[in-house]
Amino acid sequence: MPAAVDHDERRTRVLDIAEGILAEAGLRAVTVREVARAAGVSTAIVSHYFRDKDELLLLLFRRNVREAFAYADAAAAKGDLKGMIEAAMVLDNARVARWRIWLAYLAQLASHPEIAEIQRGSAAEQLTRLGTMLRCLQERGDIAPHVDPDIAAERLLSLIMGLAIQVLFDPPAWPPERQHAVVDAELRTLYKVGRLPDNVSSAP
Amino acid sequence: MPAAVDHDERRTRVLDIAEGILAEAGLRAVTVREVARAAGVSTAIVSHYFRDKDELLLLLFRRNVREAFAYADAAAAKGDLKGMIEAAMVLDNARVARWRIWLAYLAQLASHPEIAEIQRGSAAEQLTRLGTMLRCLQERGDIAPHVDPDIAAERLLSLIMGLAIQVLFDPPAWPPERQHAVVDAELRTLYKVGRLPDNVSSAP
Repeated sequence: MPAAVDHDERRTRVLDIAEGILAEAGLRAVTVREVARAAGVSTAIVSHYFRDKDELLLLLFRRNVREAFAYADAAAAKGDLKGMIEAAMVLDNARVARWRIWLAYLAQLASHPEIAEIQRGSAAEQLTRLGTMLRCLQERGDIAPHVDPDIAAERLLSLIMGLAIQVLFDPPAWPPERQHAVVDAELRTLYKVGRLPDNVSSAP
Repeated sequence: MPAAVDHDERRTRVLDIAEGILAEAGLRAVTVREVARAAGVSTAIVSHYFRDKDELLLLLFRRNVREAFAYADAAAAKGDLKGMIEAAMVLDNARVARWRIWLAYLAQLASHPEIAEIQRGSAAEQLTRLGTMLRCLQERGDIAPHVDPDIAAERLLSLIMGLAIQVLFDPPAWPPERQHAVVDAELRTLYKVGRLPDNVSSAP
């Protein structure tokens, strides 16, 4: 009798393995053959779950975006702007992998219209979330009245993306404290004096 | 008698053509064969100038970094912080191409240690330039005394990179005015009241 196979579990495992290869060795190294080898299954099995490399990459990218949003949502629910930003800071190995994958995909934008579309949608969604949070904090009297919430959201999203890229290229030069110093300096320009939350340092 | 060939000119032309293909169709489309076809020469001639695709890409990346620095240096010489930032804003097609190339390379970081090294060096150099400029403007009394020039440089470089990536994915949504609004809002947090230069808008 053949062993029962949990397809969802095997599919997830194949995705995890592909993600690991991509994070460690780059997009070029992700091939159906290599994923099959690392998973200890045949290429036919990998192909059963994913038509080809492009489909596998697209699914990985989508899963990544979903995970990042779930993380940010948990912070947003608590009115925690810094927490929303921490979701995207490169503070642990999981987030190093996530950003590497994101970067590898971005580079494909010209040849993959579907990826460009997901990225556009996810950036728009992040801007809306940040803008909503900033507006809410401004109504509560925490954010200074002269701050335009939409432009502040654009500043924050830009800063997060650019910071992550710098960190990715030189992790030893960017311990968490240095990343927090940059993000906190940015956040201090938004909050009213005396209304800075506990997780944003006040030291300049 | 064979026509005299200007090797420097031909080499530059091959690089230009490779850059055009990369900016339009992505990294995957850049092959020695395709570059030769577009340049109207044999693959043997392209291979004469560049050992392989990787060498061609590395030279393109280096040329890109050099061009961006020359642009920023011209602004820095005039004490023009906003001008330094404009060097990296996606304000015309040439800069769209430059950023697309940069992005395509970044994605190769895991498999190309040399590119990661160039990127690290160029980020460090840009931070130093921005930090020096900010320190100088602070000594002149333009930048507020509470601003830490090194952290402000990190904020600015992060913001520029992240903004460019957002623009690249959705150029129609990001006309120059919208990009200027984000950059100017950031710069306003650094300058003293009444010391804002003419090319930074004061409207919030």
